[in-house]
Amino acid sequence: MIPILTAFEHSPDGGRGLARDMRIRWALEEVGQPYHVRLLSFEAMKQPEHLARHPFGQIPAYEEGDFALFESGGIVFHIAERHGSLLPRDPHARRRAIMWMFAALNTVEPSVFERVLARILERDTPWHDSRLRVLEDRIRDRVGHLARHLGDAAWLDGDFSAGDLLMVTVLRWLNSSNILDDYPTIAAYVARGEARPAFQRAFAAQLADFNKGSAPAP
Amino acid sequence: MIPILTAFEHSPDGGRGLARDMRIRWALEEVGQPYHVRLLSFEAMKQPEHLARHPFGQIPAYEEGDFALFESGGIVFHIAERHGSLLPRDPHARRRAIMWMFAALNTVEPSVFERVLARILERDTPWHDSRLRVLEDRIRDRVGHLARHLGDAAWLDGDFSAGDLLMVTVLRWLNSSNILDDYPTIAAYVARGEARPAFQRAFAAQLADFNKGSAPAP
Repeated sequence: MIPILTAFEHSPDGGRGLARDMRIRWALEEVGQPYHVRLLSFEAMKQPEHLARHPFGQIPAYEEGDFALFESGGIVFHIAERHGSLLPRDPHARRRAIMWMFAALNTVEPSVFERVLARILERDTPWHDSRLRVLEDRIRDRVGHLARHLGDAAWLDGDFSAGDLLMVTVLRWLNSSNILDDYPTIAAYVARGEARPAFQRAFAAQLADFNKGSAPAP
Repeated sequence: MIPILTAFEHSPDGGRGLARDMRIRWALEEVGQPYHVRLLSFEAMKQPEHLARHPFGQIPAYEEGDFALFESGGIVFHIAERHGSLLPRDPHARRRAIMWMFAALNTVEPSVFERVLARILERDTPWHDSRLRVLEDRIRDRVGHLARHLGDAAWLDGDFSAGDLLMVTVLRWLNSSNILDDYPTIAAYVARGEARPAFQRAFAAQLADFNKGSAPAP
């Protein structure tokens, strides 16, 4: 059964692959699972039909027939566990990879995503510059600890896993800042993720969908 | 083997069970697993000995002999999977419960925890009131959607699961606000979680540790 991924019709990221459907596309490409895409407008995302798929009215949502999931971490976990190749077989290494999935989304993403939100929602407020400094200090704390952990390893814990996949998608939100200039091993880690053929295929697919969704009406 | 949980010596929550070690204590109580606790000062959390346990220099950390985890979501997942009783057996229901674990930590917690941080770190800034309104609107959006999903059900998806455990611990950060006054079904959901005997035992244990850590030197 070909799963259906729900994504933005007009992604606010302008086709840079920063929306959270990118995580699902990348995971599906890593495991070699084809998929269909349903593109939704912001208006459609707030309608009952979509709220039945995603209780928070967001993307991504994911369907395999009657089985439906939302929440990027939960969908990537499902794909990883179903197909096996994004989680180690060793039970302890597997639990550590899942721990890194949570660390990406609960310890690193909040500080990084608050900066994304502040740049969009608070740009014209008088406190924007002061808040940005506070947020960037928080991000540097997290990224500095991450760099210390990574050392000169290629991935967070052994082979590439679903934990790395999520961590790289989180850190990519910093590509438009100069923060990673001070953390060259983390910049190289992100680049390693982006260089994976599965990432490249997923990126091209989301860009094609962005261009389709953003094409002027004929 | 009795696991060791690392927690705050002086929790900044004043013993209200809001620090993230509460999630681990509650999960361990739900599955009936005894544990030891290592209490650390803020200074000790930044030392190499603790950074080897927790790369971000935070709590909670968790050890079973040589097997070590950090990150509350990852530790709760480990406990749930190891003991079985906090995740459904049905494969689809199990994946949905794990999805709710991610939803609690990645969709609901960021908005709720930003308010906690703003109340501590930005209380004296000129923008505090304006930011608080923005943050509370974000929280209300999330909680409103959650209430719509929950309806008159007791738990998020069937029986109580690790997803409910994490969601309740996230929503408890709102107990000191009046936000949940407008969402009585969510307030009742939180109260249902807090009424569970395992929660009560975990709460008493963290309070005893707080009182021990905060006792004046003899």
